Amino acid sequence: MLLDLYMEDKNEYKYLTRIDYPADLRKFKVEELPTVCEELRRDIIKELAINPGHLASSLGAVELTVALHYVFNTPYDRIVWDVGHQAYGHKILTGRRDRFCTNRKFNGLRPFPHPAESEYDTFCCGHASNSISAALGMAAAAKLNGEDRKVVAVIGDGALSGGLAFEGINNAASTPNDMLIVLNDNKMSIDNSVGGMRQYLLQLTTNSTYNNLRYKISQKLSDWGILNEKRRKGIIRFNNSVKSVLTRQQNIFEGMDIRYFGPTEGNDVVELVRTMMAIKEMKGPKILHIHTKKGKGYAPAEKNATVWHAPGMFDYESGERIVSDDGKPHPPKFQDVFGETLLELAQKNPKIVGVTPAMPTGCSMNIMMNAMPGRVFDVGIAEGHAVTFSGGMAKDGLMPFCNIYSSFMQRAYDNIIHDAATMRLNMVLCLDRAGLVGEDGSTHHGAYDLAFLRPIPNLTIASPLNEPELRNMMYTGQLPDKGTFVIRYPRGSGNTVDWRCEFEELPVGKGRKLKDGEEIAVLSLGPIGTEVQKAISIAELASLKDRPEATLNIAHYDMRFLKPIDEELLHEVGTKFKKVVTVEDGALSGGLGSAVLEFFAEHHYPIEVKRIGIPDEFVTHGTIAELRRTCHMDALSIAEVLS
Amino acid sequence: MLLDLYMEDKNEYKYLTRIDYPADLRKFKVEELPTVCEELRRDIIKELAINPGHLASSLGAVELTVALHYVFNTPYDRIVWDVGHQAYGHKILTGRRDRFCTNRKFNGLRPFPHPAESEYDTFCCGHASNSISAALGMAAAAKLNGEDRKVVAVIGDGALSGGLAFEGINNAASTPNDMLIVLNDNKMSIDNSVGGMRQYLLQLTTNSTYNNLRYKISQKLSDWGILNEKRRKGIIRFNNSVKSVLTRQQNIFEGMDIRYFGPTEGNDVVELVRTMMAIKEMKGPKILHIHTKKGKGYAPAEKNATVWHAPGMFDYESGERIVSDDGKPHPPKFQDVFGETLLELAQKNPKIVGVTPAMPTGCSMNIMMNAMPGRVFDVGIAEGHAVTFSGGMAKDGLMPFCNIYSSFMQRAYDNIIHDAATMRLNMVLCLDRAGLVGEDGSTHHGAYDLAFLRPIPNLTIASPLNEPELRNMMYTGQLPDKGTFVIRYPRGSGNTVDWRCEFEELPVGKGRKLKDGEEIAVLSLGPIGTEVQKAISIAELASLKDRPEATLNIAHYDMRFLKPIDEELLHEVGTKFKKVVTVEDGALSGGLGSAVLEFFAEHHYPIEVKRIGIPDEFVTHGTIAELRRTCHMDALSIAEVLS
Repeated sequence: MLLDLYMEDKNEYKYLTRIDYPADLRKFKVEELPTVCEELRRDIIKELAINPGHLASSLGAVELTVALHYVFNTPYDRIVWDVGHQAYGHKILTGRRDRFCTNRKFNGLRPFPHPAESEYDTFCCGHASNSISAALGMAAAAKLNGEDRKVVAVIGDGALSGGLAFEGINNAASTPNDMLIVLNDNKMSIDNSVGGMRQYLLQLTTNSTYNNLRYKISQKLSDWGILNEKRRKGIIRFNNSVKSVLTRQQNIFEGMDIRYFGPTEGNDVVELVRTMMAIKEMKGPKILHIHTKKGKGYAPAEKNATVWHAPGMFDYESGERIVSDDGKPHPPKFQDVFGETLLELAQKNPKIVGVTPAMPTGCSMNIMMNAMPGRVFDVGIAEGHAVTFSGGMAKDGLMPFCNIYSSFMQRAYDNIIHDAATMRLNMVLCLDRAGLVGEDGSTHHGAYDLAFLRPIPNLTIASPLNEPELRNMMYTGQLPDKGTFVIRYPRGSGNTVDWRCEFEELPVGKGRKLKDGEEIAVLSLGPIGTEVQKAISIAELASLKDRPEATLNIAHYDMRFLKPIDEELLHEVGTKFKKVVTVEDGALSGGLGSAVLEFFAEHHYPIEVKRIGIPDEFVTHGTIAELRRTCHMDALSIAEVLS
Repeated sequence: MLLDLYMEDKNEYKYLTRIDYPADLRKFKVEELPTVCEELRRDIIKELAINPGHLASSLGAVELTVALHYVFNTPYDRIVWDVGHQAYGHKILTGRRDRFCTNRKFNGLRPFPHPAESEYDTFCCGHASNSISAALGMAAAAKLNGEDRKVVAVIGDGALSGGLAFEGINNAASTPNDMLIVLNDNKMSIDNSVGGMRQYLLQLTTNSTYNNLRYKISQKLSDWGILNEKRRKGIIRFNNSVKSVLTRQQNIFEGMDIRYFGPTEGNDVVELVRTMMAIKEMKGPKILHIHTKKGKGYAPAEKNATVWHAPGMFDYESGERIVSDDGKPHPPKFQDVFGETLLELAQKNPKIVGVTPAMPTGCSMNIMMNAMPGRVFDVGIAEGHAVTFSGGMAKDGLMPFCNIYSSFMQRAYDNIIHDAATMRLNMVLCLDRAGLVGEDGSTHHGAYDLAFLRPIPNLTIASPLNEPELRNMMYTGQLPDKGTFVIRYPRGSGNTVDWRCEFEELPVGKGRKLKDGEEIAVLSLGPIGTEVQKAISIAELASLKDRPEATLNIAHYDMRFLKPIDEELLHEVGTKFKKVVTVEDGALSGGLGSAVLEFFAEHHYPIEVKRIGIPDEFVTHGTIAELRRTCHMDALSIAEVLS
């Protein structure tokens, strides 16, 4: 089967090459759409085999994508995607097929749809659960502007657990609008979706017979001219009561006055087109619930959608993922150091529990989850709840480790303040993917955490230079009475192969001198410190060659803690050095550099301070090396500042 | 009736004086509880007549409070209040009756329950919608710790629209727990509650006959020993299908596998006690839906619960609110300047719409709402949605003014970044209650906004010195292509009686010199600048007297914009002055002072900078004057720094 799929060359498509924009797609007959879908799917798989990205979600959404652009008059009508994972087909159909090979690359297409890239991209969609709110805004705008514009939000079942999605649905019922919400239900976010809503959607599935019946009846009535808007409302009410009898089932959405249709087979493009055609002109908010299969049409991805969510490179004929292995031992990913260490600590400390918002694999908490399922809570995509829930457990004596990607922790900002720090609850918040994250780009860089966490009273904020330090910070954070303890660390790996050190308590609020020096001192926080070490070597070597009469000898301090900041260390630095350079993998406004400036100002040290970090812009996507260079945070750029 | 209520002296209570703690309450017979409630209610009204606070919510919750402490073994069992408005009865019954006269006062009882004050206060509850998540955490902890502890979350229908509450409910269905959620439904948050969920709750009400029937049957079966846990599950399933038939009604909560009881009369303490007794030992998550009347038992408050939410002082015999009026014209509240100006602008610019998360009265958007109901959206307690929804409208050409209290904007942090700033959408975010707010205390101070907003790229951040400036900033923000425009202003009034100036566009990113001077320059942001003006007068006068040979002449700059910061102005200051003092009504870490330090460091100005602002602690409650003094932000303290 795989061979069949890839026998043809990429340009031998029958239809796809004739589609530059959705207007071209709309020239085809409905019967031709399955072939369009087949070609589009093949195109995505071929491209992603050599250019890694989010495969499984986009495969599942192929028919939906084609149906939406076929039925709706895009870009005039608005399709709002929820999380851009599923939107590769959308990109290919909207003028970006030629450039799709640059997807996620530096200077290439963005990883997620964004209005700055295409008029077909209606809203920023890197973070989950925002589509309904944004679409409702557009639908309300259409009403007020007197435009007969259709607005469609496409949301996955995973994203539905986010509170923002609920707020949107709740408000949709009371705001005049004709929005269509397509609930793309593949029973997964990245890992399996969880919670009452999932349970609920599962139950709905069993009722498709009735729903299909109802849909067909209403369509017939409509065809015959019997069903107008006024009558429809009455009939729907009657239908609902019949439904209750027939199915002993309740519908949450209709309970909230949003019309519900489905569940419908979402990988059948003809059926989808027919359904959407039938409901697109209906007034009022509507939900169309469809079932799709994540990874659809590519056997390996269908079998294990979690692994194939973003599989990296793979051989498209054999379906083997390409894992480079030179046989040598490599440093682990920081996330795996977290995952392994958490399990070790949990084995020693029975109070430790793990909390993750739908990211057990992404943060490697699945290691503890597999070993101690009762002590790990995957709460679904619900960052705010993850923190407050951890707060409740901490209040009653447990020691939660709550792990949330830095950029998603923005969702839990008030929860950190109000539900943890105000009570100085003993818990550890781990911010994975802190700093520049690479290909996931502007919405995913963990750029702001240092700046937004620093003003919060009672917090401890730490970042490890390397893997053993991460272990020791985790160990320290779970010791008694350490309060709300934040540890931030980046995506990817560090440099330490032998990382599994003995645990050692680190003194809170104390940094350390890594290297002595004169005149210039570098203060760094976190693993960017290894870049600093390289930079110092470069600068010192260069000075040895260029001006042997005054070679550089640069000191390097690893701050370890942003808060409380090491005042003793800063007094030492303030007394001894003329110039200080701060280096952090975070936004320049308000982070480590600012903290150092504040200290020096308060204690009247007239020192020249140069701050290196993420500049005041939404940083693009690319490899981390490319982005560090762009932000002047790579070893060479730092060395220039030191020279 | 009012007379009857207040004839007796406060200490002539029959029961209340015998209750120091809930254990004392539990010695009474159930039949005696109505009198306890009557006395407790009277005590609250009497106290609040002379010591202003949140009246109406607490009156409505009197019976609930008594029933909870009677049925549950507090403090071992946990009651988690959602928003402390309703918790005055709770305070009086839990060892704080004597000190209740200090409620909300400097050094007195806290405005909202907090664990630091009492072991009966289980969690911080200043911000809405967090109770279910926190209680679920405690319930999960009880399970893991092997404790037979009951955990109850008490949430109002208004707070139920918050996404966090939904995330908690969604997770409650999939996490092992025996939590009870009491849904205290008074059909209001502060203003009327809105949205699909409200609609839904209204419908449920019509089904109480069936629910009561079901409850009575199940109680009988239980009394006869017929109903054990295993059987109960089957019966509940059967019941649900019967219910669907009987009522043609769907239950959202049971759809999500949370057992539903109610609606029950929540101002009938005997009924409440009986119901809670019956369900408290049941396993699994449960919701008890009760109806209460906000303001219950005090006629004026029953009649207009919005006004009596926090009525200020009043005469408890006549029920007249005491409004001091000396007949002179007074400066308006900033919120009213916002409200009036918004309407004026909306009359000129048809693209303007208003968005508020359940605070139309609190932020005075009700002025526009009354005049143009179709152009103002009250989205319910849902701050994140308010911003993203505004983003959707902005994307399609409207000009939203979204008004959210500064401390609640912490809930919408990611939305500002991801759903507004990344796309540089043209919208105005107004942060009312920015800076110290006074009696509402630590959870409500708008202390962090300057620090958490500053690192966000693309934002404009402004704060007006006075009322006319607020008008002009609002005018400027809605002009074409101004991007995402933040205006923060404080609670209360400024100083300008004649505030209704002609509109004038302010140059974005430009401050202004208010007063020339030598040697020392003060840079301030926002209305705290008037405190600076006083401070400068004081310092200059004092120097005139103390050291006439070197009298002070202090310059004062009003920055107007934190971002973009006025670089030209800062170059002028850097060149001309030796010492700079920054003054802001916000957290010292990362705000205006830090921005100034960053600029001076970058441009090598070796200037002494002293920063004045909110220190790194959760500031207590009291009058704004008291708190400014505590934080050394009052005119006298500033003058000391200048001298």
